[in-house]
Amino acid sequence: MSPGASSRAGVLRRHRDVLPPEVAGAALSLGEGDTPLVELPGAARRLGGGRKVFAKFEGANPTGSFKDRGMVVAVAAAARGGAKCVVCASTGNTSASAAAYAARAGMACAVLIPAGKIASGKLAQAAVHGARIMQVDGDFDDAMSAVREMESAGDAAVVNSINPMRIQGQKTASFEIAEALGRAPDVHCLPVGNAGNITAYWLGYREAHARDGCGLPKMLGCQAAGAAPFVKGGPVRNAETVATAIRIGNPQSFQSALDAARESGGRFAAVSDDLILAAQGFLAAREGIFCEPASAASLAGLWAEFERAPEFFPEECVIVCTLTGHGLKDPDIVKIPKPEIHPANPDALKKALEKIVSDG
Amino acid sequence: MSPGASSRAGVLRRHRDVLPPEVAGAALSLGEGDTPLVELPGAARRLGGGRKVFAKFEGANPTGSFKDRGMVVAVAAAARGGAKCVVCASTGNTSASAAAYAARAGMACAVLIPAGKIASGKLAQAAVHGARIMQVDGDFDDAMSAVREMESAGDAAVVNSINPMRIQGQKTASFEIAEALGRAPDVHCLPVGNAGNITAYWLGYREAHARDGCGLPKMLGCQAAGAAPFVKGGPVRNAETVATAIRIGNPQSFQSALDAARESGGRFAAVSDDLILAAQGFLAAREGIFCEPASAASLAGLWAEFERAPEFFPEECVIVCTLTGHGLKDPDIVKIPKPEIHPANPDALKKALEKIVSDG
Repeated sequence: MSPGASSRAGVLRRHRDVLPPEVAGAALSLGEGDTPLVELPGAARRLGGGRKVFAKFEGANPTGSFKDRGMVVAVAAAARGGAKCVVCASTGNTSASAAAYAARAGMACAVLIPAGKIASGKLAQAAVHGARIMQVDGDFDDAMSAVREMESAGDAAVVNSINPMRIQGQKTASFEIAEALGRAPDVHCLPVGNAGNITAYWLGYREAHARDGCGLPKMLGCQAAGAAPFVKGGPVRNAETVATAIRIGNPQSFQSALDAARESGGRFAAVSDDLILAAQGFLAAREGIFCEPASAASLAGLWAEFERAPEFFPEECVIVCTLTGHGLKDPDIVKIPKPEIHPANPDALKKALEKIVSDG
Repeated sequence: MSPGASSRAGVLRRHRDVLPPEVAGAALSLGEGDTPLVELPGAARRLGGGRKVFAKFEGANPTGSFKDRGMVVAVAAAARGGAKCVVCASTGNTSASAAAYAARAGMACAVLIPAGKIASGKLAQAAVHGARIMQVDGDFDDAMSAVREMESAGDAAVVNSINPMRIQGQKTASFEIAEALGRAPDVHCLPVGNAGNITAYWLGYREAHARDGCGLPKMLGCQAAGAAPFVKGGPVRNAETVATAIRIGNPQSFQSALDAARESGGRFAAVSDDLILAAQGFLAAREGIFCEPASAASLAGLWAEFERAPEFFPEECVIVCTLTGHGLKDPDIVKIPKPEIHPANPDALKKALEKIVSDG
């Protein structure tokens, strides 16, 4: 037996040959990456033909979201650069991941959030990993502006998505998908909020193709209808959607995401919150995967675009949907039916079970 | 590139050569298993000497706990046996996993819980995966008795830990650890509640050693002081601990767990809730891993036993702690400090940051 043969070595070692040399092979890891690529037979049946659909389930990362891929690279680079503290403006998955990797690297972490209005549940991960949570007297843009200006603070490194190392880490998912399938998919669907991930995936596919000749997918960027600047053609005000992780009206990576769609022969789709929640329920109850609402936008976008333009998905095509985060990130979205009360009588319970089975 | 080279193939395929022939290699999978084995340098420093400590982080499984390893085997066997419904009595991780794999396999799932007293949050996963939640007019033992009697219900398969397939699946973690380390650890610490997992790990290590000569660890079973039948020598009434997943006074697998400790030269340790929460906080804030309280009992047990009997852990020993579930399973345990409010002024924020860094 050779040591390390099968444990998840983490993004920096697993993908050392495609990462910037200053961090490639570094030891920092919580076992991120190498997430499951799970076939979705139910989703494929709904499309029909010989189409195959897979989910890249990023919820299986250590902090429960895809952010870990980019954060391990950003924090390793910050540590190497001598930073003693990482800082980000975030109320969700970014702060959880930044706090976890900062803890792992022995660095401090500061999370800036707008004052008021923040449900504390969202910050549980940042808090448990020891981050200092600082409310800024202003809105999210004020917090973000403050973070940008801290770039020059010397000891602090900004790990928001303006940090280019994030994209470098996130691109590694494309390499894993191409390796698992033996080629790139024909279509790749993913949720688009700040648009860093579609930028990263497209970079990853181009690099994998240049290296291995795996082919290139068409990129389908999926947005919530209430926060769809790519579909509307420019920034939107007062973005609103149940999919909080993509509730962004003015994306950081606007131009590079437009380029990804155009260069790949892809496009953007906007989907209603109802369709997002329907896709989330379908993935959980039919395919066995519980993802957060924003994640389900990828399947919802596939459904919507398939209805609008089926020719985008040829009969024999292979489609991958990225599910960006675990459903446990946002469990309050689940509606729990009021449980039925039964007598503790095996015969009566058997009858009830038989009814459940016959109901399907 | 060869297809499937690196995606997580799941327990039934990855471990096909050590599983019962009727399920080995079956297609059912959500990408469970192959979880990270993460070194814990902070925990090792606390012990001193040349000791090394690793965490097997089972929270990275699809539903967020180790239960997925056994459940995929149990549900695959039930499907092969013609069952149309799986049933379990559970208020936590077992029901989440049963519901997810039943959904995946196209089977119904019934979850029996005692009437009243159940926080609905714990059942969000079972509900979202489409399980029918049935409150039984009685306590947990009544629900469990009803489940046992359903074994004969024909279409229904019981997937509680009385199902021997669960142990078969859970033993696969030992194979992965021995493979990743290149040998078995010297000591393996894991939380003990119903005691199925310590039984399964010990079975796995014995099989791995018979096959590969990887050696055998001493098993350290870690219990919460308020629910410690193995330390007290028999069943306890009114078990109570913050670590709900191991709050069990009368374990299902009592004798086989005793055997595992005795045969391996191991033992059991009991730890206070305070120490469990301290270990959870240490893992999150120092090592970057957020696990549920029951999981942290393994590190707490290591600390307690090292203080009581340091000779159990020789200077150069390799120790593995199983972390059974993700912290997101029980986020309410986290105390979130009241955030400080700062003016949206970069200079003031920089000063505050400098203070955070200098505070360490």
